[in-house]
Amino acid sequence: MPKSTPSNPSAAMLVIGDEILSGRTRDANMYHLAGELIQHGFDLNEVRVVADNEAAIVDAVQALSASCDHVFTSGGIGPTHDDITADCVARAMGASIGIRDDARALLAAFYDGQGIEFNDARKRMARIPEGADLIDNPISTAPGFSLGNVHVMAGVPQVFQAMLAGLLPTLKGGAPLLSQSLQINRPEGEIAGPLANLAADFPTLSIGSYPFWKAGAFGANIVIRGFDKSDLDKAMSRLAIIFEAAT
Amino acid sequence: MPKSTPSNPSAAMLVIGDEILSGRTRDANMYHLAGELIQHGFDLNEVRVVADNEAAIVDAVQALSASCDHVFTSGGIGPTHDDITADCVARAMGASIGIRDDARALLAAFYDGQGIEFNDARKRMARIPEGADLIDNPISTAPGFSLGNVHVMAGVPQVFQAMLAGLLPTLKGGAPLLSQSLQINRPEGEIAGPLANLAADFPTLSIGSYPFWKAGAFGANIVIRGFDKSDLDKAMSRLAIIFEAAT
Repeated sequence: MPKSTPSNPSAAMLVIGDEILSGRTRDANMYHLAGELIQHGFDLNEVRVVADNEAAIVDAVQALSASCDHVFTSGGIGPTHDDITADCVARAMGASIGIRDDARALLAAFYDGQGIEFNDARKRMARIPEGADLIDNPISTAPGFSLGNVHVMAGVPQVFQAMLAGLLPTLKGGAPLLSQSLQINRPEGEIAGPLANLAADFPTLSIGSYPFWKAGAFGANIVIRGFDKSDLDKAMSRLAIIFEAAT
Repeated sequence: MPKSTPSNPSAAMLVIGDEILSGRTRDANMYHLAGELIQHGFDLNEVRVVADNEAAIVDAVQALSASCDHVFTSGGIGPTHDDITADCVARAMGASIGIRDDARALLAAFYDGQGIEFNDARKRMARIPEGADLIDNPISTAPGFSLGNVHVMAGVPQVFQAMLAGLLPTLKGGAPLLSQSLQINRPEGEIAGPLANLAADFPTLSIGSYPFWKAGAFGANIVIRGFDKSDLDKAMSRLAIIFEAAT
């Protein structure tokens, strides 16, 4: 990330659930959130993935809530026994938790409307910490919530994305990070020296080199990020010259 | 993860690099590592993703190295200015670092053989902490290394996978975790109660419910994991009965 930003709020993500740690599921929410945060002017500093384990969730929520302006969580707010996120977040933030009338009313109306039993398992989804604001779930009603700077959302990607789309416009972000990139079909070792000089000459930009291996040869995507369009253009022009010198 | 395991070694992963935090790249190494660790009898407890930032890398290496038996890192060991992983791991573990003769000899032979200049940038890839064991890189030679319980590998997925394939057989894993799963095309709310009872009756098994949303309706994959085949079979039989009762 650029070393000097116009004080964009910092963010962290906490992915909760065994399914990624077991190799069963390939993450989708991290990728989606990262892209959305860049566009809305938040700097994503860190992501953690932890299991459905009370101590692990509480520790991670406390650490990330203290170190970042916003924490976004995904997973563990459904009706089954392994859905313990709401209780863990309440404990981490020192809030009490119980079935809240507003969340229960939303869910009761939703299930009544469909002629489905609003059973005890489903009532668990109305457990919301005291003082939290509900996050709207336009797909399946069971709400997420924001407690302090922790925003708790579902793990099912379609629901996560829908909740995030409602939440993000309510948070004050900073300037969107601009980026330009150039793919070079040469190994990094050939341009690393001039690239380091370029980075030193533009201290307010972030210049990243992301190598790839394709058809038996290395190449790299050089990505320049920053908030000043004119600096970005200057650095990209210099990059093109470095690249030509290497070919 | 199952509450009681035959003392399988614990593991953590540290993904280093701005490309995932910026939403540019969707993670591949986490997914690959998680699947390999399960098969080799390691419990993956936690994953962290941090930026190319010295303090963030050092803090994460120290925290994960203290809390887990093994730490696997990916990213940041190439020749460019943003490749700072080796130096950060050395600092985190209190080791000195410099260009090591064995790594330099490997790289010199590789580049000489191809008639490519072994320049200063490429020599950076021979920076290996004192006391570390090299991890073989059959694709592009530049080695990874193991320092204490921290195993440092490349971020390019093909290289990461090749390094891991050489490393894993040298580490002592435990029993492979067995798992069986059943996909149910019913919302979790309908089977959450009996599922919680099932989990309580089989305390040595992990019973996870992973909801999905497809074609306008919720379903869930129920995954039962454990080390005892006979317990697993019994729990799956009970699960089938619960599922029939719900349909």
